[in-house]
Amino acid sequence: MGELASRKSPLANDVLLIFLSSPRNEEWVSRVESRFPGLEVRWVNNMLPDGRFLLPDEVDDETWNGVTMLISFNAPPPERLTKVRFVQLTSAGADKWHDHPVYKNPDIPFCTTNGCHPPQIAEWVIGSWLSNQHHFLRYAENQKQGFWEGPMAVDFEDSVGLRMGVLGYGAIGRQCAKIAKAMGMDVYAYTRSEKPTPESKKDDSYCVPGTGDPDGLVPSKWFHGASKEAINDFLGQDLDLLVVSLPLTTETKGLIGKEQFEILSKRKTFVSNIARGPIIQADALIEALETGKIRAAALDVTDPEPLPKDHPLWKAPNVFITPHVSWRTNVYWERVLGVLETNLERMDAEKPLINVINKKLHY
Amino acid sequence: MGELASRKSPLANDVLLIFLSSPRNEEWVSRVESRFPGLEVRWVNNMLPDGRFLLPDEVDDETWNGVTMLISFNAPPPERLTKVRFVQLTSAGADKWHDHPVYKNPDIPFCTTNGCHPPQIAEWVIGSWLSNQHHFLRYAENQKQGFWEGPMAVDFEDSVGLRMGVLGYGAIGRQCAKIAKAMGMDVYAYTRSEKPTPESKKDDSYCVPGTGDPDGLVPSKWFHGASKEAINDFLGQDLDLLVVSLPLTTETKGLIGKEQFEILSKRKTFVSNIARGPIIQADALIEALETGKIRAAALDVTDPEPLPKDHPLWKAPNVFITPHVSWRTNVYWERVLGVLETNLERMDAEKPLINVINKKLHY
Repeated sequence: MGELASRKSPLANDVLLIFLSSPRNEEWVSRVESRFPGLEVRWVNNMLPDGRFLLPDEVDDETWNGVTMLISFNAPPPERLTKVRFVQLTSAGADKWHDHPVYKNPDIPFCTTNGCHPPQIAEWVIGSWLSNQHHFLRYAENQKQGFWEGPMAVDFEDSVGLRMGVLGYGAIGRQCAKIAKAMGMDVYAYTRSEKPTPESKKDDSYCVPGTGDPDGLVPSKWFHGASKEAINDFLGQDLDLLVVSLPLTTETKGLIGKEQFEILSKRKTFVSNIARGPIIQADALIEALETGKIRAAALDVTDPEPLPKDHPLWKAPNVFITPHVSWRTNVYWERVLGVLETNLERMDAEKPLINVINKKLHY
Repeated sequence: MGELASRKSPLANDVLLIFLSSPRNEEWVSRVESRFPGLEVRWVNNMLPDGRFLLPDEVDDETWNGVTMLISFNAPPPERLTKVRFVQLTSAGADKWHDHPVYKNPDIPFCTTNGCHPPQIAEWVIGSWLSNQHHFLRYAENQKQGFWEGPMAVDFEDSVGLRMGVLGYGAIGRQCAKIAKAMGMDVYAYTRSEKPTPESKKDDSYCVPGTGDPDGLVPSKWFHGASKEAINDFLGQDLDLLVVSLPLTTETKGLIGKEQFEILSKRKTFVSNIARGPIIQADALIEALETGKIRAAALDVTDPEPLPKDHPLWKAPNVFITPHVSWRTNVYWERVLGVLETNLERMDAEKPLINVINKKLHY
């Protein structure tokens, strides 16, 4: 006990800067500072009262001085991070960081918040799919007029036996799959690298208990391969619903274009993008919607963002757009701080971190 | 084999009248007539080209003559049914029939279509819940203006750890529960009679494979009792989402009124009614919405139906109304004919029918 108490934590000389859109969580800070004696926690709420976000380089020198650990979404200027030895991102992807020298340093681990997003993003995917399949927006318009439209006026298709294709079977895609299966859907999974064994099908990122498909048991069929042919083959599998849940990388930028929409037109696939806007070529998407190649699209991300007021995507038929909100939940920061605390715990115990990004693949 | 071939089917002298909102399914009719030699199948599509529904008493005498088995939603005049020995309803409830002399005859079994509705109705319940929780109608309005609203403008709550209460844990409620559990929700079940054993928790009605909770394994807690106190106790269990999936009976008519909304106000429960409108007192519902006692309501059924154009429920805050469509799916009649064919099979084999209604309880 005496020995334990006198043991110096590997975090004893660290300064952790928390740069979050959330007011300082006193309970969390005092717990963490007492768990890891010597660790200093600094907190910057980057959401300004006027709704604008504070950028990392707007934060004063004193706050940055001596920072060795950072949690942030945006990438601060490299000169702020000369002493940094660990970065916890607040997102599932690292696309803001790809060219950053600190990111390129192989000795500095970057960890994602994999596992904090799946419940709410999967709800967004399933909810927007159901809203379209069950014509909710039509009825919302009817309601304004007090119009009780005859129940046979329009056709409905339920999800039993329909097929969801998950392009990027990571933590988010797995929770989409779990709900889809509960609705009676068939699920096909795509991953970049082959997953031939039960062990390789597992996902070891953080998972909210009771959710997801950590063991990869849901899909009835798996696809893989980084080539265009491999992607096209997957898109051609008679998918009723395509969930785009890939990271944005140089490989995935513009991945879905005219040729891919042509393939999707066979089944008039419903396209749901909760990843990053530029993975889908905006012009090709608008054309696919306008010509009815796809039945509809639900987009929580666009290219560009914010989508300008006069952008033609807003007015394309059968599209539903939300302003990059699907990740949001009132417990988001609690979940992110949970991942961060787990990683502090692991550094303290000198164990491997969770959610470490592969910097070659950027996820 | 010779003996089997010469066996006379118990259906050999039957005349089955199919009264459905669907054109004659030749494949089904010829299969059934050849499976049960001697059975005559008559088919009336009650959906008229102008969208109106043909009533049973508008059908000519010749069609009714000699009918011994009927599948219908509406109740024909008793004089049409003097020879009827089996009625297959096309709905989960029998409220159109309660006072009908043929229904009151204990020797004539009535069967519901339990199990044909759960997939699509559960999708409606979960979809309308998610649409509300994720502010989809707000974003649909923003989209019309090309307005990319800042992602922090409104709060979001995901479903992890929230509680769904299913008032009436039958086939529909069980599929709602299955999806809710996949989203990480906790489920409480209410049934009229006590279900103390694993055996009693089972539901033996028709179930689309891969859906539902036929063994009653999802709920973390079960409640029961027909008294007002029992209902009120259930409603007081901090429910985030209340699914009303009870049959309409003299006991359940007006079950949810001012007192019950007062109980629900503790948690501002979201109320979803996919059962029958009159189970909820319309005035009390409007008052609960207007005073914010409940956070919102999703109603596929109302009292009356159709809801008149000037009815105040249309304009109540935070209500979403659809015109009794949640049961609809493009495979509905296939599923109903599947249940009917199963029951013909069972009559032919002299086995017990499935989905037989308990005429004391009306479900």
